[in-house]
Amino acid sequence: MRLIDGKAISEQVKQEIAKEVAEMVGRGEKRPHLAAILVGHDGGSETYVAAKVKACEACGFKSSLIRYEADVTEEELLARVRELNEDEEVDGFIVQLPLPKHISEQKVIETIDYRKDVDGFHPINVGRMAIGLPCYISATPNGILELLKRYEIETSGKKCVVLGRSNIVGKPMASLMMRKAYPGDATVTVCHSRSCDLVKECQEADILIAAMGQPGFVKAEMVKEGAVVIDVGTTRVPDATRKSGFKLTGDVKFDEVAPKCSYITPVPGGVGPMTIVSLMKNALLAGKKAIYK
Amino acid sequence: MRLIDGKAISEQVKQEIAKEVAEMVGRGEKRPHLAAILVGHDGGSETYVAAKVKACEACGFKSSLIRYEADVTEEELLARVRELNEDEEVDGFIVQLPLPKHISEQKVIETIDYRKDVDGFHPINVGRMAIGLPCYISATPNGILELLKRYEIETSGKKCVVLGRSNIVGKPMASLMMRKAYPGDATVTVCHSRSCDLVKECQEADILIAAMGQPGFVKAEMVKEGAVVIDVGTTRVPDATRKSGFKLTGDVKFDEVAPKCSYITPVPGGVGPMTIVSLMKNALLAGKKAIYK
Repeated sequence: MRLIDGKAISEQVKQEIAKEVAEMVGRGEKRPHLAAILVGHDGGSETYVAAKVKACEACGFKSSLIRYEADVTEEELLARVRELNEDEEVDGFIVQLPLPKHISEQKVIETIDYRKDVDGFHPINVGRMAIGLPCYISATPNGILELLKRYEIETSGKKCVVLGRSNIVGKPMASLMMRKAYPGDATVTVCHSRSCDLVKECQEADILIAAMGQPGFVKAEMVKEGAVVIDVGTTRVPDATRKSGFKLTGDVKFDEVAPKCSYITPVPGGVGPMTIVSLMKNALLAGKKAIYK
Repeated sequence: MRLIDGKAISEQVKQEIAKEVAEMVGRGEKRPHLAAILVGHDGGSETYVAAKVKACEACGFKSSLIRYEADVTEEELLARVRELNEDEEVDGFIVQLPLPKHISEQKVIETIDYRKDVDGFHPINVGRMAIGLPCYISATPNGILELLKRYEIETSGKKCVVLGRSNIVGKPMASLMMRKAYPGDATVTVCHSRSCDLVKECQEADILIAAMGQPGFVKAEMVKEGAVVIDVGTTRVPDATRKSGFKLTGDVKFDEVAPKCSYITPVPGGVGPMTIVSLMKNALLAGKKAIYK
């Protein structure tokens, strides 16, 4: 069994980005600039945004954090999004989700100029990914692709089972694993809460990507000997023994599943760190105008 | 075994549309107007476009056919697309594919205003479908959904295997069969030329959707007893005994597969007639401005 070390790979990717940014700036080109809008004071969102700002520094990006209180109106937020769309200084930006209930997340996402949509959530980027055109691929799926690539894991013709059909992980992951490319060219099965034969499908998987958000859902008997297991779960399970009061828990029972795997990602330290680094990669592409002019 | 009669269903749907259009016009509303651009004289394209014009008549739509010779320039064609985008009289339009090699199909598709893109090929419509937002769903997948619905075929929790990963059938079909809806909620597997376990996957399918474009690819031993088989193949196989010189041939060996099925579509007369009727449904939605204002 080999542990997929997302933390180490993410550091490596950040260094690669930093090197490229230094070269760009050395050539007199503009330093890439990523902006983030954070609404309210949700604990998880605060943590993620702080990590993103820190990652920007590590990569040599300029970053801006724009804060609003939770009672900001939708119109006010949309107006700021439109301003960022027009602001030539800003190469790409994100609006940290979730948003307060009185604001339509979908409306916000669709108001972002798809050419600056480094989260890859705009329908144009989603559609272009499905068709196989250059686009911003959303962070978690892209991070998983990067891990498969860095560990040179064979995917062509393999049976890849994706657990979960969310718009931000399950569906794009399935789409990417079936495309004509590496990583890709896999036979892809998507299972979810309604699936009758979920256990059987898992047992046949060469590559199992668990993104249900159900702590400890994948048990040893569901995994084939020699499988590659990617755990996308990051549920905060209360844990009084920790200072934070919770423990990040994956969808896979790591202790019992790991011995059967050829490769497995831990939680934390697997997919998680790659997510932020994927956003940095998109920000670099935005800075270079590599996908859209 | 029950034959899925796409021809009969398509007639029924056309009558339903015609009734609704008559009511609209009776209320003094505008008659829906579908336009088609046809470039060159490809035999298949001529046939399809003629069938579309005829279907428009049956539905009570206004239709316009705009013809160009095969040597039209890309810029000339794009200019006409932009005109149709602006033309308030035209509710929706299609550009019949394939186009001559000197014209970028992708550029043409992306130039069409997504609000008039009744073929559902624009990245915005593809992306909205993937996310589960209202959109124009492309004709073949939508026609298959309609057949499943009209025959009240159970899909929730079932294993649905899609053969082929094309942008116009395989990928959208997979996306639709996994969404939280009826038809949908299926465990979906996409197989393709690179799949190692294709036969085994097919043998486990409750619903098998064959869209490889390989005549007679699906044989009896690949199909489970009681399966639902949807044959999307329509390859023109030379046949000297026919006036046309060819025979439309499906991806399924009908004679040997049919006895094992609970439901099966024939070729011709299965999915084919539904494709045009799905376009008519989108044209009606466009006329009613039901999806986009």
